[in-house]
Amino acid sequence: MTKQVALILSGCGVYDGSEIYETTLTMLRLDQLGIVYECFAPDIDQHHVINHSTGEEMDETRNVLVESARLARGKVRPLDELSVDDFDALILPGGFGAAKNLSNFAVKGADLEVVEGLRAAVQPFHEEGKPIGVMCIAPVMVPQLLGQGISVTVGSDASVAGAISAQGGLHKSCEVTDIVIDAANRVITTPAYMLAERISEAAEGIFKLVDRIDGWITDDQAREADKQN
Amino acid sequence: MTKQVALILSGCGVYDGSEIYETTLTMLRLDQLGIVYECFAPDIDQHHVINHSTGEEMDETRNVLVESARLARGKVRPLDELSVDDFDALILPGGFGAAKNLSNFAVKGADLEVVEGLRAAVQPFHEEGKPIGVMCIAPVMVPQLLGQGISVTVGSDASVAGAISAQGGLHKSCEVTDIVIDAANRVITTPAYMLAERISEAAEGIFKLVDRIDGWITDDQAREADKQN
Repeated sequence: MTKQVALILSGCGVYDGSEIYETTLTMLRLDQLGIVYECFAPDIDQHHVINHSTGEEMDETRNVLVESARLARGKVRPLDELSVDDFDALILPGGFGAAKNLSNFAVKGADLEVVEGLRAAVQPFHEEGKPIGVMCIAPVMVPQLLGQGISVTVGSDASVAGAISAQGGLHKSCEVTDIVIDAANRVITTPAYMLAERISEAAEGIFKLVDRIDGWITDDQAREADKQN
Repeated sequence: MTKQVALILSGCGVYDGSEIYETTLTMLRLDQLGIVYECFAPDIDQHHVINHSTGEEMDETRNVLVESARLARGKVRPLDELSVDDFDALILPGGFGAAKNLSNFAVKGADLEVVEGLRAAVQPFHEEGKPIGVMCIAPVMVPQLLGQGISVTVGSDASVAGAISAQGGLHKSCEVTDIVIDAANRVITTPAYMLAERISEAAEGIFKLVDRIDGWITDDQAREADKQN
């Protein structure tokens, strides 16, 4: 039976969008496991545009959906078209886009709000018990998106961990090559580029995350097949 | 002994820059093998900017070096700083940036010229017999960059193969998961997204390319060590 996973992107580039390697490595592992994926992104202006060579803000405007399309080789749909019925699981890669475009964590810290439509897109996965993978800085949105008391990791950053805690979330420290699993909530997180100094380290944690999601989907499909027999 | 590879990028996005997955997968494999890499790109305006969601040209200007920095997490140096003495091998990922920014193949076909400074950066690797890996559409530049009679592949595209042939190059058809090796010239090519329909297919060919380059560097370092003993 085909397995289908939705990815939510936030642009294209670590400093103002989705982290490129995290997203690519997620796609690689999904495809290696025969899992079909589709990309979604909000059709809004980016918070700002960063010159990734200098780190300076640029005097221009870019659209999150349009830039996300670079990372998806063109195939990205507006976030409001994401329907839980079409997918077995959901993954949110990281990058500052999660803290600047999908939420305003970069500006508001623990008082962050998530972008319009994101909670409506994500919560149904949680309500139906479908696996949700979140990486890098993106787990800082988990309390707002999914509710309190869910265990996540962003690695070992005390300030982000504190912001998660202040919102009623639970933070566990974690190595870059590892994952944190909240089995009851089926939420799985990995530090990725919150800690990674090498792309192969990030890959190790991300591959574990995708493999665990693959296992959960297999379980769900077996249970569904049993019901129908 | 540390192995060092230079990558030449051409922007960030398949339709107007470097192909993102090809570049990321190259970096992943290099890092998994313990090979250090560094990125270079020309400090010039892109030929144009494509909205990757619609395929339409956008009315704006972007710089190849600045956009390449997205793909390099900030760390990219101007092409004219690339010195053969610092590296054991060279890799050029593909994407339309190779045909629009590094050369004008997209406009001039077989009469293409390569961007100023590219031949000066690449030829010394060829002269010193250091391995050069080229992927996707980028092998169309090989006759201009390295000279005639070198075997390369872009997969099975008759028109690009014809353009290579017209310039005095040799084209061999090749599956997406495979590589073409010109051992005498130490040039290695793989079709990648000239043919890939799935990222895992592209990865298979790209990993073979990087593995072969790793083997050549190992041979070179052993020979060098023998000389010194």
